[in-house]
Amino acid sequence: MSLHRANVEKALSRITRYVHRTPVMSSGFVDKLLGCSVLFKCENLQKVGAFKARGAINAVLSLPASVHTVITHSSGNHGAALAWAASQVNKKSLIIVPVDAKPIKKSAIRNYGGVIIDCGPAITDREKKLSEVLRETDAHFVPPYDDPDIICGQGTAALELQEDYPEIEELWVPIGGGGLAAGSALLDIQGNGPTVVCAEPSLARDAYDSLRTGEIQPALPPKTIADGLRTSLGRLNFEVLRSLNIHIELVHEEAILSAMSLIWSRMKLVVEPSAAVPLAGLLAKGTDAPAVGVILSGGNVEATFNLTN
Amino acid sequence: MSLHRANVEKALSRITRYVHRTPVMSSGFVDKLLGCSVLFKCENLQKVGAFKARGAINAVLSLPASVHTVITHSSGNHGAALAWAASQVNKKSLIIVPVDAKPIKKSAIRNYGGVIIDCGPAITDREKKLSEVLRETDAHFVPPYDDPDIICGQGTAALELQEDYPEIEELWVPIGGGGLAAGSALLDIQGNGPTVVCAEPSLARDAYDSLRTGEIQPALPPKTIADGLRTSLGRLNFEVLRSLNIHIELVHEEAILSAMSLIWSRMKLVVEPSAAVPLAGLLAKGTDAPAVGVILSGGNVEATFNLTN
Repeated sequence: MSLHRANVEKALSRITRYVHRTPVMSSGFVDKLLGCSVLFKCENLQKVGAFKARGAINAVLSLPASVHTVITHSSGNHGAALAWAASQVNKKSLIIVPVDAKPIKKSAIRNYGGVIIDCGPAITDREKKLSEVLRETDAHFVPPYDDPDIICGQGTAALELQEDYPEIEELWVPIGGGGLAAGSALLDIQGNGPTVVCAEPSLARDAYDSLRTGEIQPALPPKTIADGLRTSLGRLNFEVLRSLNIHIELVHEEAILSAMSLIWSRMKLVVEPSAAVPLAGLLAKGTDAPAVGVILSGGNVEATFNLTN
Repeated sequence: MSLHRANVEKALSRITRYVHRTPVMSSGFVDKLLGCSVLFKCENLQKVGAFKARGAINAVLSLPASVHTVITHSSGNHGAALAWAASQVNKKSLIIVPVDAKPIKKSAIRNYGGVIIDCGPAITDREKKLSEVLRETDAHFVPPYDDPDIICGQGTAALELQEDYPEIEELWVPIGGGGLAAGSALLDIQGNGPTVVCAEPSLARDAYDSLRTGEIQPALPPKTIADGLRTSLGRLNFEVLRSLNIHIELVHEEAILSAMSLIWSRMKLVVEPSAAVPLAGLLAKGTDAPAVGVILSGGNVEATFNLTN
């Protein structure tokens, strides 16, 4: 593995004028529940509403000037993030989106300047469509997580948090493809970062099983409400996490809902289900650390209101 | 009128160690919509989830030591705020709550240490119960808005915002009983504060009609979704607002919902309907000011989730 903490530090100085240095919030209620100081890094307040903006802009800024068009497949935050990132540096973006994706997700991508390419609903459909477009155009593929520039870009959220709160000993992050997890874990390669703990929905436990068996396991059926964490673990991400012996805590769906409700009602922050997974894990496992970080990964969720009073 | 800006300044130094100096947030999307810089004072992140904590703690801290028990009638944020404030200074609190109030509101009051006294659902029931308890106990009544200490306490949110962003020329606040409105308006008595503009739901336009007719008008039937703004204007509040010639902008229910949705989806902040009323007014009226403040008054709302993806 050739990635180091220094790569995350370089990524941060590269992207810093494009992204928000997101605020860090706390809740007296949560601190009391856990008996320690819990510091929430609010990536739901990041550009495009998720940490994915960091990796996408880092990847785009690392491309040679000869690349004029980037492409990815995603119906989620990475698609919107890449469209946004490309627009920041006057590149074109093509986003392959399954035909059954929600209209609101497509319009977000279009609002950031992305061009949508429809594909069938299966994972094989999007890969087929990607190969097809790559053959026909000079577009450059920016993968959602299995990529060094993406990993180092995502790690900058944890780096900012550590710069602001060096006392944090333990850092909880959600794990899906493993971009945020691997990027955060890189900070501790030589013992200079917080210990990263990943939280994963039990219904999407492929990363847990991958680290346990030593082999990448396929994604499970997309059943968890934490829709951002349904993807399978990337290869490079797997290698980083395995080499650093990162622990993964599994969490139940009810615990995710309960943590999300706590963040909404007590902290008044809109977070998507995936962003509540780390707090769910932390509440279940507990901690001995006096100061713990939690990355609130994103806030892109459709909310309805109960306005009867 | 004997209230001045100096009273708000004194209130701020009195309460500052009890309340949060709430963060100020902005949204590139909103700035573009309005063609100016819009600075949101996040009182939804205040203690008890609303600016009401400011007035309540200011009132309680201004009481003589001989007062051991405070009392109020409220099924909303003021009841919870007074219970919280009393607990901060080891006083007892009695909160008169209509029997049909939501269990979640009652449990919030109890969690802050308040003792709940049930009363009938009509406004006359609560006043009768209040007189009854005042006769029988030595409790001191802290009204929700028609009170100089409450008014000056609520004004501290605007004062903090002005201290942080002196360039703000225009400040939008919601108006219900008029505590926040009058307290904010006091800053400009000698021209040293931003021009306060109030926003009021059309369905609860008693403050608008009171200023227009020069006489306090009774509250309208409680139909607006902005449940925090259904009360009638207080007498002292009326006098402050009339003497300063404060403008009130009326807003429709759809505009409130639309502004609330914008704050949730773009700013990722949980706000209650009343807190969205000023942005609704600002979006409808527009502004010539280069920098405008908006007070997000509170975040106490029950949310449900749309978790189908």
